[in-house]
Amino acid sequence: MSAGQQESQKVPRTERGRKTLRKLLDAAASEFGEHGFHEASISSITRRAGVALGSFYTYFDSKDAIFRALVQDMSEAVKVAARDAIEPDMRPLELERAALAGFLEFAAEHKEIYRIIDEAEFVDPRSYRDHYETIAERIRDRLRSGAEHGDFRDDIGEVEAWALMGMNVFLGLRYAIWRREGDPGSAEVAASANALLARGVAN
Amino acid sequence: MSAGQQESQKVPRTERGRKTLRKLLDAAASEFGEHGFHEASISSITRRAGVALGSFYTYFDSKDAIFRALVQDMSEAVKVAARDAIEPDMRPLELERAALAGFLEFAAEHKEIYRIIDEAEFVDPRSYRDHYETIAERIRDRLRSGAEHGDFRDDIGEVEAWALMGMNVFLGLRYAIWRREGDPGSAEVAASANALLARGVAN
Repeated sequence: MSAGQQESQKVPRTERGRKTLRKLLDAAASEFGEHGFHEASISSITRRAGVALGSFYTYFDSKDAIFRALVQDMSEAVKVAARDAIEPDMRPLELERAALAGFLEFAAEHKEIYRIIDEAEFVDPRSYRDHYETIAERIRDRLRSGAEHGDFRDDIGEVEAWALMGMNVFLGLRYAIWRREGDPGSAEVAASANALLARGVAN
Repeated sequence: MSAGQQESQKVPRTERGRKTLRKLLDAAASEFGEHGFHEASISSITRRAGVALGSFYTYFDSKDAIFRALVQDMSEAVKVAARDAIEPDMRPLELERAALAGFLEFAAEHKEIYRIIDEAEFVDPRSYRDHYETIAERIRDRLRSGAEHGDFRDDIGEVEAWALMGMNVFLGLRYAIWRREGDPGSAEVAASANALLARGVAN
């Protein structure tokens, strides 16, 4: 748990409490995703969640606090989506393909994620930076592990991790959020990106 | 000239007018970069520019109009920075390396660009999308040209263009905007990214 969570988000002790917290976070995702941080209101969030206004303050101190918790929650959801798409016996390269395909599917089903993470740059810059630094570290660890297995070049590190993350984020923006009719599907986009990752563009 | 410009930005007819417009755009870059769109004011922009408040309205109808013009101006500046870094006799791959190195240098000297382009997602979504779609088209044309020269694989297209743009944007975020002591320089980052583009990460 981050320092931010400890300060301003109370952890529910009961199953019912966990369900209420989940409803509030899902409602916040819709509310912030549709209206943005400044136009969003706590009363709209509780109305969407079907939760009494007073219950909100059992879990969060403020609109800022639930926004911050939501960014962390979405970071976690991105991680889980990528992890769920991965099988333990996959080779390092196959693993990257599956993680990207999983992320593209997730983004297509949760289009609000881009707007919310991007707005964090202005509403809560620390969460924004944490989000990307955490993902980059995870990718770097996977790439290093691939190098240790002999599948990837030995000089692969942080630059390649940020490059790969940027690829994935922009492919999600283009093919999940700004999707057009006739576009290649998630699996096809992930396969093309994986070929680029595997052997580059050179002839 | 875009429809947006025709509507709300007047084109100066004299050299003096062009200089005033340049001063206003540079002042707007500092003002929006430091304070963000909502906190920024027209009077602060004219004060920074050393221009009379009334002169502002010779060129722009509103704060929205100068913001929109600034995003277009920055898109153009990114294009010029990449183009200036390129020599006409470069091979397609070398050209991508030089364009990225040029962009990283540009971003390091104009750190406000990320905040302004990113805020366009909320203030003027159309400009935000135009910015990336235009860059992606330019990259796709370069990649296609590289394929026609036989340097790149023949199946390279839009997916690879968005992937490459994402790589470049996130490398700029990490190594220009969030730069840390001991980080590799622009040339080194561009060389690593270029190796990834050329031959991927596979061993």
